[in-house]
Amino acid sequence: HKRVEDVEESWQDDEYFGNYGTLRLHLEMLSDKPRTETYRQVILSNSATLKGKVVMDLGCGTGVISLFCALLAQPAAVYAVEASSMAEHTEKLVRQNGCEEVVTVFQDRAENLTLPGKVDVLVSEWMGNCLLFEYMLESVLLARDRWLREGGMMWPSSACLTVVPCQAFSDYRQKMEFWEKPYGLDFSYLQLLAQKEFLSKPKFSHHLLPEDCLSSPADVITLDMITIQVSDLERLKGEFNFTVEKSGMFHGFTVWFSAHFQSLEEDGPSLELNTGPCSEITHWKQTLFMLDSPVTVEEGDIIVGSIRLQRNPIWRRHLSVTFSWNINSTEVSKVQTKCFPMWR
Amino acid sequence: HKRVEDVEESWQDDEYFGNYGTLRLHLEMLSDKPRTETYRQVILSNSATLKGKVVMDLGCGTGVISLFCALLAQPAAVYAVEASSMAEHTEKLVRQNGCEEVVTVFQDRAENLTLPGKVDVLVSEWMGNCLLFEYMLESVLLARDRWLREGGMMWPSSACLTVVPCQAFSDYRQKMEFWEKPYGLDFSYLQLLAQKEFLSKPKFSHHLLPEDCLSSPADVITLDMITIQVSDLERLKGEFNFTVEKSGMFHGFTVWFSAHFQSLEEDGPSLELNTGPCSEITHWKQTLFMLDSPVTVEEGDIIVGSIRLQRNPIWRRHLSVTFSWNINSTEVSKVQTKCFPMWR
Ligand SMILES: [Ca+2]
Ligand SMILES: [Ca+2]
Repeated sequence: HKRVEDVEESWQDDEYFGNYGTLRLHLEMLSDKPRTETYRQVILSNSATLKGKVVMDLGCGTGVISLFCALLAQPAAVYAVEASSMAEHTEKLVRQNGCEEVVTVFQDRAENLTLPGKVDVLVSEWMGNCLLFEYMLESVLLARDRWLREGGMMWPSSACLTVVPCQAFSDYRQKMEFWEKPYGLDFSYLQLLAQKEFLSKPKFSHHLLPEDCLSSPADVITLDMITIQVSDLERLKGEFNFTVEKSGMFHGFTVWFSAHFQSLEEDGPSLELNTGPCSEITHWKQTLFMLDSPVTVEEGDIIVGSIRLQRNPIWRRHLSVTFSWNINSTEVSKVQTKCFPMWR
Repeated sequence: HKRVEDVEESWQDDEYFGNYGTLRLHLEMLSDKPRTETYRQVILSNSATLKGKVVMDLGCGTGVISLFCALLAQPAAVYAVEASSMAEHTEKLVRQNGCEEVVTVFQDRAENLTLPGKVDVLVSEWMGNCLLFEYMLESVLLARDRWLREGGMMWPSSACLTVVPCQAFSDYRQKMEFWEKPYGLDFSYLQLLAQKEFLSKPKFSHHLLPEDCLSSPADVITLDMITIQVSDLERLKGEFNFTVEKSGMFHGFTVWFSAHFQSLEEDGPSLELNTGPCSEITHWKQTLFMLDSPVTVEEGDIIVGSIRLQRNPIWRRHLSVTFSWNINSTEVSKVQTKCFPMWR
């Protein structure tokens, strides 16, 4: 067992920012068109109102959002903040695109940041798997509290976690049923081990097909980016009450998020980045939480329960996700519960 | 920089055997039908001759090959050897399949192994990416030298490394051309960084399509499992002389291997596991080595050169793969060379 020596280690910042110092993750994010295009559209559709405004782009990476601001609108200044060593390259990209008059790169963590002054808009792409994973949101909220002027705009302005009960035949077949009789051998003894190894943690990068949804999805947790506090992130809870819309096999729950971008104009249209199964697939895909044993459900069955996101008190970028649910019952004695560490 | 304290660390055995103590890799290998079915066919087609023989299954994992022996043939004994903690489960699987009279599990490393006596057949699935990666072959050869009786059979009995010059448009597009003008921005400055990060190491799990082969493949290195010595593994070299069969873009070389299983009977048919682009895909897929810059080639062009596999003197499970090649020339001054660490 590893002992946690200090706060730095429990944030695993060397690992976290080290990853963002290489191109791999940036390429993945930039190649994600629905994600990057949404931010581009947000800037574009607010370009008139952005004129003369001061924008902070927190965790700017290669600086793509800052460059959108400088090239598609006429902000007074853009502060592009990036803690990883990528910041050195971002500086070069800003010059290469002729934006150095407008965009200033700050290689700093949100916590230590010193800016020339407050900002009108704080834009950031902080969302992780199940919305919160890696808790970059904490840095965004710290930056908001110190640097966003009264009445300023947050982009995204709100974010929402969505859940649906679902089928996952192919995952269950490949990871659990496989052991029953491979090549004529009885390997069923390994199923308990397989359950522990493959079903105890969520599957990131699950691709949920709309036809595998057993009911309409439910928005279970909504974060208002202006009012939410860092302390709220410790424990978030949402409730659901699904009516099964077609008979099938209840293999687990799938979770995703959407992010909403309010217009700077009073009645301007808002934009949405939806990472769900009915939208174009993103690099987040969806997150699958599998039950230990699937349950047959019929049209009209009711799955009622809750989801709880509990931040890890030691490993501050991790959380556990606990589902509690009842099928066709409200009896407390019949509640099923499963807790998934994510990642510890 | 990490200092290598002792031999154990330079073999990274905790990591190596730790990985094989969980189900993930075993599921991947068992789910690989061409691989597992080949071993099953080898046992099945030699079942008459295996009667009364003693077999060692080295690195048996879940014991699948040992169980094939016990259930499909009538060997006198099978010694199933597995160093990782999986061995405890293997024992249970042997009993569950009623093979405990024939199959004995030894949880031991090849180097420390003590068996009741010599064996007639040593079967093992030791092949890694580019055939040699992870160098499990060394353990197999140590076991051979100590426990295989004079004139005994090795399965595979030989293995071959194959190379082809190839196109890889989609890889090149996604990793290199991407930076040219994403979302209207000039990110070309990052191409040098991308080349260093994405093209300096091979791409495991490449899926080469037959139509992306620029010429017929060439077998460049063949290992005879009876005669090869551990010391031979330090440095292996092969030569190639390709004639381009269709004009296209020379993006790099793709490498794979085949394993050959001689029959126990004098003139019995031999079996082959081929992991190349014209065979059913396996969990090894193929390994892609990309040039820094692609070269246009025409039908009839000659690509002549060599491949060298140099085992890492410190990290004993790793190697470097060096390609040297000339296009339409034999002038030494025009030789191109690129060395790929794999993995260090
Ligand atoms: Ca993110
Ligand atoms: Ca292997």
